[in-house]
Amino acid sequence: MKHEKPLILLTNDDGVDAKGLKELVACLRDLGDIVVFAPDGPRSGMACAITSILPIRYQKVSEEPGLTVYSCTGTPVDCIKLSINEVLDRKPDLLVSGINHGGNYAICVQYSGTMGAAAEGCVFDVPSLGVSLLDHHHDADFEESGRLARLVARRILKEGLPHGIYLNLNVPNMRDVKGIKVCRQADGKWTNEYKRSENATGDPVFWLSGAFVEKKPIQTDNDTLALDSGYASLVPCKIDVTDYEFMNHLNTWV
Amino acid sequence: MKHEKPLILLTNDDGVDAKGLKELVACLRDLGDIVVFAPDGPRSGMACAITSILPIRYQKVSEEPGLTVYSCTGTPVDCIKLSINEVLDRKPDLLVSGINHGGNYAICVQYSGTMGAAAEGCVFDVPSLGVSLLDHHHDADFEESGRLARLVARRILKEGLPHGIYLNLNVPNMRDVKGIKVCRQADGKWTNEYKRSENATGDPVFWLSGAFVEKKPIQTDNDTLALDSGYASLVPCKIDVTDYEFMNHLNTWV
Repeated sequence: MKHEKPLILLTNDDGVDAKGLKELVACLRDLGDIVVFAPDGPRSGMACAITSILPIRYQKVSEEPGLTVYSCTGTPVDCIKLSINEVLDRKPDLLVSGINHGGNYAICVQYSGTMGAAAEGCVFDVPSLGVSLLDHHHDADFEESGRLARLVARRILKEGLPHGIYLNLNVPNMRDVKGIKVCRQADGKWTNEYKRSENATGDPVFWLSGAFVEKKPIQTDNDTLALDSGYASLVPCKIDVTDYEFMNHLNTWV
Repeated sequence: MKHEKPLILLTNDDGVDAKGLKELVACLRDLGDIVVFAPDGPRSGMACAITSILPIRYQKVSEEPGLTVYSCTGTPVDCIKLSINEVLDRKPDLLVSGINHGGNYAICVQYSGTMGAAAEGCVFDVPSLGVSLLDHHHDADFEESGRLARLVARRILKEGLPHGIYLNLNVPNMRDVKGIKVCRQADGKWTNEYKRSENATGDPVFWLSGAFVEKKPIQTDNDTLALDSGYASLVPCKIDVTDYEFMNHLNTWV
Protein backbone atom coordinates (compact mmCIF):
# COMPACT_ATOMS: atom_id res chain seq x y z
CA MET A 1 0.00 0.00 0.00
CA LYS A 2 1.36 3.35 -1.02
CA HIS A 3 1.19 6.19 1.46
CA GLU A 4 0.81 9.56 -0.19
CA LYS A 5 1.68 11.60 2.85
CA PRO A 6 4.71 11.47 5.11
CA LEU A 7 4.15 9.97 8.56
CA ILE A 8 5.08 12.48 11.26
CA LEU A 9 5.50 11.27 14.84
CA LEU A 10 5.16 13.89 17.57
CA THR A 11 5.99 13.60 21.24
CA ASN A 12 7.20 15.76 24.14
CA ASP A 13 8.13 15.61 27.83
CA ASP A 14 5.45 17.96 29.14
CA GLY A 15 2.65 15.47 28.55
CA VAL A 16 0.03 14.82 25.90
CA ASP A 17 -2.11 17.82 26.92
CA ALA A 18 0.68 20.43 26.81
CA LYS A 19 0.08 23.58 24.81
CA GLY A 20 3.47 23.32 23.08
CA LEU A 21 2.56 19.90 21.65
CA LYS A 22 -0.79 21.19 20.39
CA GLU A 23 1.03 24.03 18.65
CA LEU A 24 3.23 21.47 16.88
CA VAL A 25 0.17 19.56 15.70
CA ALA A 26 -1.36 22.76 14.34
CA CYS A 27 1.85 23.85 12.58
CA LEU A 28 2.74 20.51 10.99
CA ARG A 29 -0.67 19.06 10.27
CA ASP A 30 -0.75 19.84 6.56
CA LEU A 31 2.71 18.31 6.03
CA GLY A 32 1.67 14.71 6.65
CA ASP A 33 -0.26 12.15 8.64
CA ILE A 34 0.30 13.03 12.28
CA VAL A 35 0.61 10.52 15.12
CA VAL A 36 1.04 11.95 18.59
CA PHE A 37 2.49 9.44 21.06
CA ALA A 38 3.28 11.30 24.25
CA PRO A 39 3.57 10.73 28.00
CA ASP A 40 0.31 10.87 29.98
CA GLY A 41 1.76 13.63 32.18
CA PRO A 42 4.89 15.72 32.73
CA ARG A 43 8.25 13.94 32.28
CA SER A 44 10.61 16.90 32.36
CA GLY A 45 14.26 16.11 33.08
CA MET A 46 13.84 12.46 32.14
CA ALA A 47 16.71 12.60 29.64
CA CYS A 48 17.03 9.26 27.77
CA ALA A 49 15.55 7.34 30.72
CA ILE A 50 13.82 4.06 29.90
CA THR A 51 11.35 2.08 31.98
CA SER A 52 12.73 -1.40 32.55
CA ILE A 53 11.60 -2.64 35.97
CA LEU A 54 7.88 -2.05 35.40
CA PRO A 55 5.76 -2.58 32.29
CA ILE A 56 4.33 0.37 30.37
CA ARG A 57 0.91 0.88 28.79
CA TYR A 58 -0.65 3.14 26.17
CA GLN A 59 -4.12 4.13 25.04
CA LYS A 60 -5.68 5.89 22.10
CA VAL A 61 -6.92 9.31 23.17
CA SER A 62 -8.51 10.47 19.91
CA GLU A 63 -8.61 9.74 16.20
CA GLU A 64 -9.66 11.85 13.23
CA PRO A 65 -8.50 11.93 9.59
CA GLY A 66 -4.76 12.63 9.52
CA LEU A 67 -4.37 12.84 13.30
CA THR A 68 -4.21 10.05 15.89
CA VAL A 69 -3.31 10.78 19.50
CA TYR A 70 -2.00 8.24 22.02
CA SER A 71 -0.93 8.68 25.63
CA CYS A 72 1.61 6.43 27.32
CA THR A 73 2.59 5.71 30.93
CA GLY A 74 6.31 5.75 30.08
CA THR A 75 9.10 8.25 29.52
CA PRO A 76 9.58 10.21 26.28
CA VAL A 77 12.11 7.58 25.09
CA ASP A 78 9.65 4.81 26.01
CA CYS A 79 7.08 6.60 23.82
CA ILE A 80 9.37 6.45 20.80
CA LYS A 81 10.41 2.85 21.39
CA LEU A 82 6.88 1.59 22.02
CA SER A 83 5.24 3.47 19.17
CA ILE A 84 7.79 2.38 16.56
CA ASN A 85 8.06 -1.21 17.82
CA GLU A 86 4.42 -1.95 18.56
CA VAL A 87 1.95 0.65 17.32
CA LEU A 88 2.87 2.34 14.03
CA ASP A 89 2.36 0.40 10.79
CA ARG A 90 5.35 2.07 9.10
CA LYS A 91 8.51 3.91 10.07
CA PRO A 92 7.93 7.64 10.56
CA ASP A 93 9.46 10.02 8.01
CA LEU A 94 10.00 12.64 10.69
CA LEU A 95 9.94 12.88 14.47
CA VAL A 96 9.41 16.23 16.17
CA SER A 97 9.61 16.43 19.95
CA GLY A 98 8.24 19.47 21.79
CA ILE A 99 7.54 22.27 21.71
CA ASN A 100 9.12 22.17 25.15
CA HIS A 101 7.97 24.62 27.81
CA GLY A 102 11.46 25.93 28.66
CA GLY A 103 14.84 26.05 26.92
CA ASN A 104 17.08 23.05 26.20
CA TYR A 105 20.26 24.85 25.19
CA ALA A 106 23.86 24.15 26.29
CA ILE A 107 24.15 21.00 28.45
CA CYS A 108 20.37 20.95 29.02
CA VAL A 109 20.37 18.61 26.05
CA GLN A 110 21.67 15.85 28.32
CA TYR A 111 18.88 16.17 30.93
CA SER A 112 15.98 16.95 28.63
CA GLY A 113 13.24 14.42 28.00
CA THR A 114 12.32 16.37 24.86
CA MET A 115 15.82 15.88 23.49
CA GLY A 116 15.95 12.29 24.78
CA ALA A 117 12.99 11.48 22.52
CA ALA A 118 14.72 13.17 19.56
CA ALA A 119 17.89 11.15 20.22
CA GLU A 120 15.82 7.96 20.34
CA GLY A 121 14.20 8.75 17.01
CA CYS A 122 17.71 9.16 15.62
CA VAL A 123 18.69 5.72 16.96
CA PHE A 124 15.85 4.34 14.81
CA ASP A 125 17.16 6.34 11.81
CA VAL A 126 14.08 8.54 11.86
CA PRO A 127 15.09 12.14 11.02
CA SER A 128 14.47 13.83 14.36
CA LEU A 129 14.13 17.35 15.72
CA GLY A 130 13.64 18.64 19.25
CA VAL A 131 12.07 22.08 19.68
CA SER A 132 12.06 24.22 22.82
CA LEU A 133 10.77 27.68 23.69
CA LEU A 134 12.54 29.67 26.38
CA ASP A 135 9.35 30.16 28.39
CA HIS A 136 8.36 27.74 31.15
CA HIS A 137 4.77 28.94 31.50
CA HIS A 138 1.91 26.61 30.62
CA ASP A 139 0.23 29.38 28.65
CA ALA A 140 3.39 30.52 26.80
CA ASP A 141 2.96 31.96 23.30
CA PHE A 142 4.24 29.25 20.95
CA GLU A 143 3.37 30.95 17.66
CA GLU A 144 6.87 32.05 16.67
CA SER A 145 8.49 28.78 17.79
CA GLY A 146 5.84 26.85 15.84
CA ARG A 147 6.62 28.85 12.71
CA LEU A 148 10.34 28.11 13.01
CA ALA A 149 9.75 24.44 13.86
CA ARG A 150 7.72 24.14 10.66
CA LEU A 151 10.52 25.72 8.59
CA VAL A 152 13.07 23.21 9.87
CA ALA A 153 10.64 20.27 9.72
CA ARG A 154 9.89 20.95 6.03
CA ARG A 155 13.59 21.06 5.25
CA ILE A 156 14.19 17.78 7.06
CA LEU A 157 11.30 16.13 5.18
CA LYS A 158 12.88 17.29 1.92
CA GLU A 159 16.54 16.50 2.63
CA GLY A 160 16.60 14.02 5.53
CA LEU A 161 19.41 13.92 8.08
CA PRO A 162 22.61 11.85 8.12
CA HIS A 163 22.76 8.66 10.17
CA GLY A 164 23.42 9.39 13.84
CA ILE A 165 22.58 13.11 13.76
CA TYR A 166 19.50 14.85 15.20
CA LEU A 167 18.68 18.53 15.60
CA ASN A 168 18.09 20.76 18.62
CA LEU A 169 16.10 23.96 17.94
CA ASN A 170 15.71 26.53 20.73
CA VAL A 171 13.63 29.66 20.29
CA PRO A 172 13.90 32.81 22.42
CA ASN A 173 10.76 34.11 24.08
CA MET A 174 9.97 37.05 21.79
CA ARG A 175 7.59 38.02 19.01
CA ASP A 176 10.05 38.71 16.20
CA VAL A 177 12.95 36.28 16.31
CA LYS A 178 15.81 37.60 14.13
CA GLY A 179 16.38 34.26 12.40
CA ILE A 180 17.95 30.85 12.99
CA LYS A 181 21.67 30.50 13.76
CA VAL A 182 23.48 27.19 13.42
CA CYS A 183 25.39 26.77 16.67
CA ARG A 184 27.51 24.57 18.82
CA GLN A 185 26.31 23.49 22.27
CA ALA A 186 27.53 26.02 24.87
CA ASP A 187 29.91 24.86 27.56
CA GLY A 188 28.79 25.53 31.11
CA LYS A 189 27.06 24.17 34.18
CA TRP A 190 24.55 25.01 36.86
CA THR A 191 25.57 26.38 40.26
CA ASN A 192 23.80 26.65 43.62
CA GLU A 193 21.54 23.94 42.43
CA TYR A 194 19.35 23.28 45.45
CA LYS A 195 16.81 25.11 47.50
CA ARG A 196 16.64 23.55 50.96
CA SER A 197 13.33 23.31 52.79
CA GLU A 198 11.61 20.93 55.22
CA ASN A 199 9.05 18.18 54.90
CA ALA A 200 6.09 17.66 57.25
CA THR A 201 8.24 15.97 59.89
CA GLY A 202 10.89 18.70 59.84
CA ASP A 203 13.49 16.75 57.87
CA PRO A 204 15.51 18.61 55.24
CA VAL A 205 14.46 18.18 51.60
CA PHE A 206 16.15 19.58 48.50
CA TRP A 207 14.46 21.12 45.45
CA LEU A 208 16.38 21.38 42.20
CA SER A 209 16.96 25.01 41.34
CA GLY A 210 20.11 26.95 40.41
CA ALA A 211 21.47 29.21 37.71
CA PHE A 212 23.34 28.41 34.50
CA VAL A 213 26.89 29.72 34.34
CA GLU A 214 28.72 29.70 31.04
CA LYS A 215 32.32 28.57 31.03
CA LYS A 216 34.79 31.26 29.94
CA PRO A 217 35.97 31.99 27.35
CA ILE A 218 32.60 32.05 25.61
CA GLN A 219 32.71 30.66 22.08
CA THR A 220 31.24 33.11 19.59
CA ASP A 221 29.10 30.50 17.86
CA ASN A 222 27.34 28.82 20.77
CA ASP A 223 23.62 28.43 21.35
CA THR A 224 23.22 30.49 24.53
CA LEU A 225 24.88 33.47 22.87
CA ALA A 226 22.63 33.20 19.80
CA LEU A 227 19.54 33.03 22.03
CA ASP A 228 20.72 36.01 24.09
CA SER A 229 21.09 37.94 20.82
CA GLY A 230 17.49 37.31 19.73
CA TYR A 231 18.16 34.40 17.36
CA ALA A 232 16.82 30.85 17.47
CA SER A 233 19.65 28.30 17.80
CA LEU A 234 19.94 25.12 15.76
CA VAL A 235 22.52 22.58 17.00
CA PRO A 236 23.27 19.32 15.17
CA CYS A 237 23.73 16.62 17.85
CA LYS A 238 25.47 13.24 17.62
CA ILE A 239 24.48 9.88 19.11
CA ASP A 240 28.14 8.82 19.17
CA VAL A 241 29.77 10.50 22.19
CA THR A 242 33.24 9.01 21.59
CA ASP A 243 36.04 11.58 21.87
CA TYR A 244 38.20 10.37 19.01
CA GLU A 245 41.09 12.73 19.71
CA PHE A 246 41.56 11.51 23.26
CA MET A 247 41.62 7.86 22.14
CA ASN A 248 45.25 8.32 21.08
CA HIS A 249 46.38 9.59 24.45
CA LEU A 250 44.37 6.94 26.26
CA ASN A 251 46.22 4.28 24.30
CA THR A 252 49.36 5.23 26.27
CA TRP A 253 47.53 4.12 29.45
CA VAL A 254 46.79 0.51 28.50
CA MET B 1 43.11 22.50 56.15
CA LYS B 2 45.28 20.22 54.06
CA HIS B 3 43.87 16.87 53.00
CA GLU B 4 46.53 14.21 52.62
CA LYS B 5 44.36 11.78 50.75
CA PRO B 6 42.35 12.21 47.56
CA LEU B 7 38.58 12.36 47.99
CA ILE B 8 36.90 9.64 45.95
CA LEU B 9 33.15 9.81 45.34
CA LEU B 10 31.41 6.55 44.47
CA THR B 11 27.89 6.02 43.18
CA ASN B 12 25.93 3.62 40.96
CA ASP B 13 22.47 2.98 39.55
CA ASP B 14 21.82 -0.39 41.18
CA GLY B 15 21.40 1.12 44.64
CA VAL B 16 23.54 1.62 47.72
CA ASP B 17 23.43 -2.07 48.71
CA ALA B 18 24.54 -3.48 45.34
CA LYS B 19 27.42 -5.93 45.31
CA GLY B 20 29.18 -4.09 42.47
CA LEU B 21 29.35 -0.90 44.53
CA LYS B 22 30.77 -2.78 47.51
CA GLU B 23 33.45 -4.24 45.26
CA LEU B 24 34.42 -0.70 44.19
CA VAL B 25 34.73 0.36 47.83
CA ALA B 26 36.97 -2.61 48.56
CA CYS B 27 39.16 -2.04 45.49
CA LEU B 28 39.63 1.72 45.87
CA ARG B 29 39.63 2.12 49.63
CA ASP B 30 43.39 2.47 50.06
CA LEU B 31 43.59 5.12 47.32
CA GLY B 32 41.78 7.86 49.25
CA ASP B 33 38.93 8.95 51.50
CA ILE B 34 35.82 7.28 50.14
CA VAL B 35 32.35 8.82 50.14
CA VAL B 36 29.57 6.66 48.75
CA PHE B 37 26.50 8.67 47.73
CA ALA B 38 24.15 6.32 45.93
CA PRO B 39 20.43 5.84 45.24
CA ASP B 40 18.42 4.07 47.95
CA GLY B 41 17.33 1.43 45.44
CA PRO B 42 17.67 0.41 41.79
CA ARG B 43 17.71 3.23 39.21
CA SER B 44 18.74 1.30 36.10
CA GLY B 45 18.03 3.00 32.79
CA MET B 46 17.70 6.43 34.39
CA ALA B 47 20.28 7.97 32.04
CA CYS B 48 20.97 11.61 32.99
CA ALA B 49 17.48 12.01 34.48
CA ILE B 50 17.07 14.63 37.20
CA THR B 51 14.31 15.02 39.77
CA SER B 52 12.74 18.43 39.39
CA ILE B 53 9.03 18.18 40.25
CA LEU B 54 9.54 16.61 43.69
CA PRO B 55 12.18 17.29 46.33
CA ILE B 56 14.87 14.73 47.14
CA ARG B 57 16.33 13.63 50.48
CA TYR B 58 19.45 11.83 51.69
CA GLN B 59 20.63 10.15 54.86
CA LYS B 60 23.90 8.91 56.29
CA VAL B 61 23.91 5.11 56.31
CA SER B 62 27.28 4.49 57.99
CA GLU B 63 30.54 6.20 58.89
CA GLU B 64 33.96 4.84 59.74
CA PRO B 65 37.49 6.18 59.21
CA GLY B 66 38.00 6.80 55.47
CA LEU B 67 34.53 5.64 54.45
CA THR B 68 31.19 7.44 54.70
CA VAL B 69 28.07 6.04 53.06
CA TYR B 70 24.94 8.01 52.16
CA SER B 71 21.74 6.92 50.45
CA CYS B 72 19.56 9.27 48.43
CA THR B 73 16.00 9.20 47.14
CA GLY B 74 17.01 10.62 43.76
CA THR B 75 18.51 9.44 40.49
CA PRO B 76 22.25 8.77 39.98
CA VAL B 77 22.66 12.30 38.55
CA ASP B 78 20.76 13.73 41.54
CA CYS B 79 23.25 11.92 43.78
CA ILE B 80 26.19 13.68 42.14
CA LYS B 81 24.52 17.09 42.11
CA LEU B 82 23.31 16.88 45.71
CA SER B 83 26.52 15.48 47.17
CA ILE B 84 28.77 18.05 45.49
CA ASN B 85 26.42 21.00 46.08
CA GLU B 86 25.29 20.27 49.61
CA VAL B 87 27.15 17.48 51.38
CA LEU B 88 30.86 17.22 50.55
CA ASP B 89 33.25 19.75 52.09
CA ARG B 90 35.55 19.73 49.06
CA LYS B 91 35.42 18.80 45.40
CA PRO B 92 36.15 15.11 44.77
CA ASP B 93 39.43 14.20 43.05
CA LEU B 94 37.78 11.24 41.36
CA LEU B 95 34.30 9.91 40.74
CA VAL B 96 33.75 6.24 40.00
CA SER B 97 30.24 5.01 39.15
CA GLY B 98 29.44 1.31 39.28
CA ILE B 99 30.36 -1.42 39.11
CA ASN B 100 27.18 -1.83 37.12
CA HIS B 101 25.40 -5.18 37.08
CA GLY B 102 25.24 -5.46 33.27
CA GLY B 103 27.12 -3.96 30.32
CA ASN B 104 26.94 -0.33 29.20
CA TYR B 105 28.67 -0.61 25.83
CA ALA B 106 27.61 0.89 22.46
CA ILE B 107 24.57 3.17 22.76
CA CYS B 108 23.79 1.83 26.26
CA VAL B 109 25.82 4.80 27.39
CA GLN B 110 22.85 7.04 26.61
CA TYR B 111 20.33 5.08 28.73
CA SER B 112 22.60 4.10 31.61
CA GLY B 113 22.22 5.68 35.04
CA THR B 114 25.76 4.53 35.84
CA MET B 115 27.10 6.51 32.89
CA GLY B 116 24.71 9.41 33.61
CA ALA B 117 26.41 9.82 36.98
CA ALA B 118 29.86 9.73 35.35
CA ALA B 119 28.76 12.39 32.84
CA GLU B 120 27.48 14.55 35.68
CA GLY B 121 30.80 14.28 37.51
CA CYS B 122 32.45 15.46 34.31
CA VAL B 123 30.11 18.48 34.16
CA PHE B 124 31.54 19.43 37.59
CA ASP B 125 35.08 18.92 36.25
CA VAL B 126 35.57 15.93 38.52
CA PRO B 127 37.60 13.26 36.65
CA SER B 128 34.97 10.56 36.21
CA LEU B 129 34.81 6.88 35.29
CA GLY B 130 31.87 4.54 34.81
CA VAL B 131 32.49 0.81 35.23
CA SER B 132 30.22 -2.03 34.14
CA LEU B 133 30.45 -5.81 34.21
CA LEU B 134 28.66 -7.82 31.53
CA ASP B 135 26.74 -9.86 34.08
CA HIS B 136 23.27 -8.82 35.28
CA HIS B 137 23.13 -11.16 38.26
CA HIS B 138 23.03 -9.74 41.77
CA ASP B 139 25.70 -12.21 42.87
CA ALA B 140 27.98 -11.68 39.86
CA ASP B 141 31.74 -12.10 40.40
CA PHE B 142 33.16 -8.56 40.34
CA GLU B 143 36.75 -9.42 41.19
CA GLU B 144 38.28 -8.97 37.73
CA SER B 145 36.24 -5.83 36.98
CA GLY B 146 37.30 -4.38 40.33
CA ARG B 147 40.95 -5.03 39.53
CA LEU B 148 40.65 -3.23 36.17
CA ALA B 149 38.61 -0.37 37.66
CA ARG B 150 41.42 0.15 40.17
CA LEU B 151 44.04 0.25 37.40
CA VAL B 152 42.17 2.98 35.51
CA ALA B 153 41.22 4.88 38.68
CA ARG B 154 44.88 5.09 39.78
CA ARG B 155 45.87 6.42 36.39
CA ILE B 156 43.11 9.04 36.49
CA LEU B 157 44.19 10.13 39.99
CA LYS B 158 47.73 10.54 38.69
CA GLU B 159 47.01 12.25 35.35
CA GLY B 160 43.50 13.66 35.54
CA LEU B 161 41.21 13.92 32.53
CA PRO B 162 40.69 16.81 30.09
CA HIS B 163 37.72 19.13 30.56
CA GLY B 164 34.53 17.63 29.14
CA ILE B 165 35.77 14.04 28.87
CA TYR B 166 34.80 11.04 31.03
CA LEU B 167 35.58 7.35 30.67
CA ASN B 168 33.43 4.27 30.11
CA LEU B 169 34.98 0.94 31.17
CA ASN B 170 33.17 -2.30 30.35
CA VAL B 171 34.46 -5.68 31.46
CA PRO B 172 33.49 -9.05 29.96
CA ASN B 173 32.17 -11.71 32.29
CA MET B 174 35.24 -13.95 32.54
CA ARG B 175 38.05 -14.78 34.95
CA ASP B 176 41.06 -13.78 32.89
CA VAL B 177 40.35 -10.70 30.83
CA LYS B 178 43.00 -10.31 28.10
CA GLY B 179 43.57 -6.62 28.82
CA ILE B 180 42.01 -3.21 28.21
CA LYS B 181 41.37 -1.92 24.69
CA VAL B 182 40.73 1.76 23.99
CA CYS B 183 37.63 1.80 21.79
CA ARG B 184 35.01 3.86 20.07
CA GLN B 185 31.34 3.44 20.98
CA ALA B 186 29.78 0.81 18.68
CA ASP B 187 27.00 1.85 16.34
CA GLY B 188 23.79 -0.14 16.65
CA LYS B 189 20.36 -0.38 18.19
CA TRP B 190 17.94 -2.74 19.88
CA THR B 191 15.26 -4.62 17.99
CA ASN B 192 12.07 -6.43 19.05
CA GLU B 193 12.17 -4.37 22.17
CA TYR B 194 8.96 -5.37 23.94
CA LYS B 195 7.48 -8.44 25.49
CA ARG B 196 3.71 -8.12 25.54
CA SER B 197 1.72 -9.50 28.43
CA GLU B 198 -1.45 -8.63 30.35
CA ASN B 199 -2.20 -6.88 33.62
CA ALA B 200 -4.76 -8.07 36.18
CA THR B 201 -7.68 -6.62 34.23
CA GLY B 202 -6.58 -8.22 30.94
CA ASP B 203 -5.20 -5.03 29.38
CA PRO B 204 -1.99 -5.27 27.34
CA VAL B 205 1.22 -4.16 29.05
CA PHE B 206 4.70 -3.98 27.55
CA TRP B 207 7.98 -5.01 29.18
CA LEU B 208 11.24 -3.69 27.81
CA SER B 209 13.29 -6.51 26.34
CA GLY B 210 14.98 -6.95 22.95
CA ALA B 211 18.35 -7.76 21.43
CA PHE B 212 21.22 -5.50 20.41
CA VAL B 213 22.01 -5.47 16.69
CA GLU B 214 25.22 -3.89 15.51
CA LYS B 215 25.09 -1.71 12.44
CA LYS B 216 27.13 -3.02 9.50
CA PRO B 217 29.89 -2.54 8.59
CA ILE B 218 31.34 -3.17 12.03
CA GLN B 219 34.24 -0.85 12.89
CA THR B 220 37.29 -2.84 13.96
CA ASP B 221 37.95 -0.68 17.03
CA ASN B 222 34.54 -0.58 18.70
CA ASP B 223 33.63 -1.63 22.23
CA THR B 224 31.29 -4.52 21.50
CA LEU B 225 33.94 -6.19 19.33
CA ALA B 226 36.59 -5.79 22.03
CA LEU B 227 34.26 -7.29 24.64
CA ASP B 228 33.37 -10.18 22.33
CA SER B 229 37.11 -10.84 21.95
CA GLY B 230 37.72 -11.13 25.69
CA TYR B 231 39.03 -7.60 26.28
CA ALA B 232 37.71 -4.89 28.55
CA SER B 233 36.73 -1.77 26.57
CA LEU B 234 37.63 1.78 27.55
CA VAL B 235 35.80 4.54 25.65
CA PRO B 236 36.51 8.25 26.17
CA CYS B 237 33.14 10.05 26.11
CA LYS B 238 32.33 13.74 25.48
CA ILE B 239 29.79 16.00 27.16
CA ASP B 240 29.60 18.12 24.01
CA VAL B 241 27.38 16.26 21.52
CA THR B 242 27.67 18.91 18.76
CA ASP B 243 28.39 17.43 15.33
CA TYR B 244 30.84 20.06 14.09
CA GLU B 245 31.11 18.66 10.57
CA PHE B 246 27.39 18.89 9.92
CA MET B 247 27.26 22.52 11.10
CA ASN B 248 28.63 23.61 7.71
CA HIS B 249 25.92 21.86 5.74
CA LEU B 250 23.24 23.05 8.11
CA ASN B 251 24.33 26.61 7.46
CA THR B 252 22.96 26.22 3.91
CA TRP B 253 19.50 25.70 5.45
CA VAL B 254 19.17 28.99 7.35
